[in-house]
Amino acid sequence: MARRYDTVSFLSDYGHADEFVGVVHSVIRSIAPHVVVVDIVHDLAPFDVRAASLALSRAVQYVAPGIVLAVVDPGVGTDRKAIAAEVGEDGEGVLIGPDNGLLAPAAQLSGGVTRAVELTNPDYQLVAPGPTFAGRDVFAPAAAHLANGVPITELGPEIDPFGLRPGLIPLSRTEGDAIVAEVLWVDRYGNCQLNVDPDDVAAFGEVVGVRVGDAARRSARRVDTFGDLSTGQVGLLVDSYGLVAVTVDRASAAEILHLEAGSELRLEAVD
Amino acid sequence: MARRYDTVSFLSDYGHADEFVGVVHSVIRSIAPHVVVVDIVHDLAPFDVRAASLALSRAVQYVAPGIVLAVVDPGVGTDRKAIAAEVGEDGEGVLIGPDNGLLAPAAQLSGGVTRAVELTNPDYQLVAPGPTFAGRDVFAPAAAHLANGVPITELGPEIDPFGLRPGLIPLSRTEGDAIVAEVLWVDRYGNCQLNVDPDDVAAFGEVVGVRVGDAARRSARRVDTFGDLSTGQVGLLVDSYGLVAVTVDRASAAEILHLEAGSELRLEAVD
Amino acid sequence: MARRYDTVSFLSDYGHADEFVGVVHSVIRSIAPHVVVVDIVHDLAPFDVRAASLALSRAVQYVAPGIVLAVVDPGVGTDRKAIAAEVGEDGEGVLIGPDNGLLAPAAQLSGGVTRAVELTNPDYQLVAPGPTFAGRDVFAPAAAHLANGVPITELGPEIDPFGLRPGLIPLSRTEGDAIVAEVLWVDRYGNCQLNVDPDDVAAFGEVVGVRVGDAARRSARRVDTFGDLSTGQVGLLVDSYGLVAVTVDRASAAEILHLEAGSELRLEAVD
Repeated sequence: MARRYDTVSFLSDYGHADEFVGVVHSVIRSIAPHVVVVDIVHDLAPFDVRAASLALSRAVQYVAPGIVLAVVDPGVGTDRKAIAAEVGEDGEGVLIGPDNGLLAPAAQLSGGVTRAVELTNPDYQLVAPGPTFAGRDVFAPAAAHLANGVPITELGPEIDPFGLRPGLIPLSRTEGDAIVAEVLWVDRYGNCQLNVDPDDVAAFGEVVGVRVGDAARRSARRVDTFGDLSTGQVGLLVDSYGLVAVTVDRASAAEILHLEAGSELRLEAVD
Repeated sequence: MARRYDTVSFLSDYGHADEFVGVVHSVIRSIAPHVVVVDIVHDLAPFDVRAASLALSRAVQYVAPGIVLAVVDPGVGTDRKAIAAEVGEDGEGVLIGPDNGLLAPAAQLSGGVTRAVELTNPDYQLVAPGPTFAGRDVFAPAAAHLANGVPITELGPEIDPFGLRPGLIPLSRTEGDAIVAEVLWVDRYGNCQLNVDPDDVAAFGEVVGVRVGDAARRSARRVDTFGDLSTGQVGLLVDSYGLVAVTVDRASAAEILHLEAGSELRLEAVD
Repeated sequence: MARRYDTVSFLSDYGHADEFVGVVHSVIRSIAPHVVVVDIVHDLAPFDVRAASLALSRAVQYVAPGIVLAVVDPGVGTDRKAIAAEVGEDGEGVLIGPDNGLLAPAAQLSGGVTRAVELTNPDYQLVAPGPTFAGRDVFAPAAAHLANGVPITELGPEIDPFGLRPGLIPLSRTEGDAIVAEVLWVDRYGNCQLNVDPDDVAAFGEVVGVRVGDAARRSARRVDTFGDLSTGQVGLLVDSYGLVAVTVDRASAAEILHLEAGSELRLEAVD
């Protein structure tokens, strides 16, 4: 059997306090020792499919060719499907995980699903005493066997490649001249990524009004880089993923403006 | 010298805030570049030999063939022995770490120790300015040299393979018709693994009474999977390691029932 | 093109809650699949160049031969230089990162810089929508291309190898017979590493007075290992890096003495 993939990029909400991540690595290494597992992120909030889907969407364009294994799975053991979905030409890449909205946005960014199967074949799963650790018993073995060259259709019956459960990526909207935006992500430094394209705020000029809830309107300066801000000044920046982010140089915009993932805020002209 | 092992599975209480884990990886890679180090878990509570021993016991059946390096070592620099213990036929696997109860349960699960040595030979250790980082100076070099094919007996004198300091795994007990159990482990999601075999609770029927301290008795439903529980309902589940766990669907059973590792609770029939 | 390096040792303040570390791994693996990335530490405090510089200095003597990638970069997007600096004979090692004091101490410990360039050539960078993720767009590609054998001089113009921005490593000083020291590092176990050489405290005898701020003087016993201390006793130990550390057996010296990185304390003779 000819080896097919040599990288598994792995994202989960397993955290680092338990041995979950290590056991998944171990299962893959035991079945497919040639594979390198690249950890994308594991300290996502438990069960937060939305945050995981966004993190995967941000990362997916950078992952090495091969398999993406993504496990945030509040419905483990229910009838949510465990799937493997090929993307790109001739199965260039494969996304593996629960079909709960986690994979669909990344699949779309990778050009769409060309073939998908439900992971039901017990020959390519570990025998499990309980149903709760699908990452170890179902998903990791699937990734490893695919890497070894097992045809994807061996893992279970084909399902509709257009039928993946869609992810819920919130869109911003306009109200009069204002943009009502949502914080997609607060990163470690407190930068708040918005669901706003840089072009959308261009008309507001150099200084943009920012309202969060009932708090007084603050002024944010549109800048190219953190260093263009004076201390404590709020800025709007095109971030490293091409979206508008609220930022404060060397301080946490999230703390200063009381923002978190999912917060709504209004951007408007200052006259 | 013929290479002997190509995987080191590494578990410690080093955490991720310091460079300890990275330095151990570096030492192994410097001595034995062909080795892949698989991190099992490092965010165990500092000095918590019991929790580490349990995590290692859960993981050990899944680790890739080769060496297990386990370092939770409150007695570093005292007369506790640093050891390497072969398990399986012909030294198929080796456990390396302090002989403080951490390794014994995993060794037993791996079929028992067939040969063991104390790590005393300075030729296979790093010269250390102080005695406090045995992971770097003693254990990692031992793992790397064994991987390179150095015979285990080169690392130090043989010790009694049946003489490892035993781990303290608490057993549940019965009091009348009740089972007095202990929480072995609270995972990231708040599931509480008990030292109870599923067969032991079978006689209690579908609904089991759970008492924690002086709190009022709660009813827990025996279910096959999280999804069989309604919101907020407490369940008893066979977990992914085959033990009974107290669980709440998409919420933390540990928070709701005020449980932590080591907590005692009573399981009893509800009439 | 002949491969040049096969290890990248990677240190940052990216933390583990976001996908930053994983994306840097992914970029390196995509460009230079033969490279093994060894994570040194990523949970350094955000923007803490001093702590990062000290961690890198502690680790650098142990890293595997090859490239060190260090990214703690509060000035990203400003005019601070992104650099690659060869150390050792014939570019045996390369340090890559921002020139903000982070790299200089490690370079010095590695024998000094022999050649350095500024990373300006866009052919060896990723096209970035925003300027904020230089680890992904500038530093990781530089590391990967160097590993692949791209000559360092291709990455940008040479700069003065003696001109790296120096790190600020605080020196201890004497006041009368006392030593005024600073805590360089508090490790996970609460041990407090001081900027004090063991020889400096030899004259104080077996018991040394320790003053922190206005608190009453405590006595610390000079010991060889944790186990020489009785419970709750404060000790001075030569730590695993050869510096004097304040320690308490199986407890946190930092908590007990109210010390943190940067704290000043006085060591003095008792009577």
